[in-house]
Amino acid sequence: MAGDGVKLLGYWASHYSLSVKWALKLKGVEYEYQEEDLKNKSPLLLQSNPVHKKIPVLLHNGKSIAESLVIIEYIDDVWKQNPLLPQDPYERAKARFWAKFVDEKCVPAFRGILSKVGVELEKSANEAREHLKTLESGLDGKSYFGDTKIGFADVAAAWIGCWAGIEQEILEIKLIDEETMPLLAAWSHNVLEQPIMKECMPPHDKLFKHAKDLRKILVPAND
Amino acid sequence: MAGDGVKLLGYWASHYSLSVKWALKLKGVEYEYQEEDLKNKSPLLLQSNPVHKKIPVLLHNGKSIAESLVIIEYIDDVWKQNPLLPQDPYERAKARFWAKFVDEKCVPAFRGILSKVGVELEKSANEAREHLKTLESGLDGKSYFGDTKIGFADVAAAWIGCWAGIEQEILEIKLIDEETMPLLAAWSHNVLEQPIMKECMPPHDKLFKHAKDLRKILVPAND
Repeated sequence: MAGDGVKLLGYWASHYSLSVKWALKLKGVEYEYQEEDLKNKSPLLLQSNPVHKKIPVLLHNGKSIAESLVIIEYIDDVWKQNPLLPQDPYERAKARFWAKFVDEKCVPAFRGILSKVGVELEKSANEAREHLKTLESGLDGKSYFGDTKIGFADVAAAWIGCWAGIEQEILEIKLIDEETMPLLAAWSHNVLEQPIMKECMPPHDKLFKHAKDLRKILVPAND
Repeated sequence: MAGDGVKLLGYWASHYSLSVKWALKLKGVEYEYQEEDLKNKSPLLLQSNPVHKKIPVLLHNGKSIAESLVIIEYIDDVWKQNPLLPQDPYERAKARFWAKFVDEKCVPAFRGILSKVGVELEKSANEAREHLKTLESGLDGKSYFGDTKIGFADVAAAWIGCWAGIEQEILEIKLIDEETMPLLAAWSHNVLEQPIMKECMPPHDKLFKHAKDLRKILVPAND
């Protein structure tokens, strides 16, 4: 499907960029991708998102849209095939609620972990697990937040499985525990195993090195 | 218009509750209102928003929806009259972007101010003014974020004029400055002067006392 001049400004390791890539891919929208150097952002990025100056930004027919969840809603509004949000208003509200929960609770929890050591690390990991348990309740017995297929909240949340694995390898902490959160563990596995989702994922070894380097900066004494 | 069993759990001084009240009122949806004691939340609130345990919560035909922006989108999805979000996907994205900006930048800025004194207060006030200047850019020369009428972002942002006034009275700081942000000042005045918007506003003197009491708790030495 022609993308009518669709361009994504992103950063390879950003889970926000990843969610937008997934949304575009699930819709079958062709797009041009521009990788940003976050230490030296392009004039196009600064000009298209003057408020936050952050990736991801979607450019479409000369218009720019920022903020990943806003972008994903836009994608769903413009390209009607394979809807990410369901038709039913209550189901739409639930999808938006969980996507917001991921942004507001899981993102800071996962970020916090990388900068912690010892007791503080354990505390942060427990906090993240609590949020993941809560997130699991949003599945409500289903395979996906989008019921029988990947939807809005899945696209917003699927990075969790990827980053939980990376943080587990680096810090030897288990965040998604099959015993205490079996539904979320199964969801995470299933969602990331889908070929379309896999295709967009950053290479494991590169992401592992990136997170390890980030850890070294955040916790230099522990290097 | 019959509300089909619509109930709002809210708190009179909460700007999040206020935004939802505005949305319901603009749609002409009749609803039952339950005032919550935030120090002793009702079993209904705890049960309907188990994740955050916070107001506002909208109950509709036995279903519960939490998070003010999610609720307002739900209201717009269910009751089609007087749409809050425009039809055009890009205009929808802009409305969502600014509503999110208000929640993420203006809310913490306005809250922060109440707990500050001296240089810190001035710093916080300047930060809030910066955010308001940015918000003004979202008007893009129009009278409302919703173009010619009150829309999604207006409903999410209109509390700002009310609270800027209260904080100005208590702290003698001007947040919405007619000279540096004339468009936002005019917007704020116009939006709060609409009869439907006025109707839902908490009484000025009660809100002033509430904010002053809050200030006393946050800055006891300055009492």
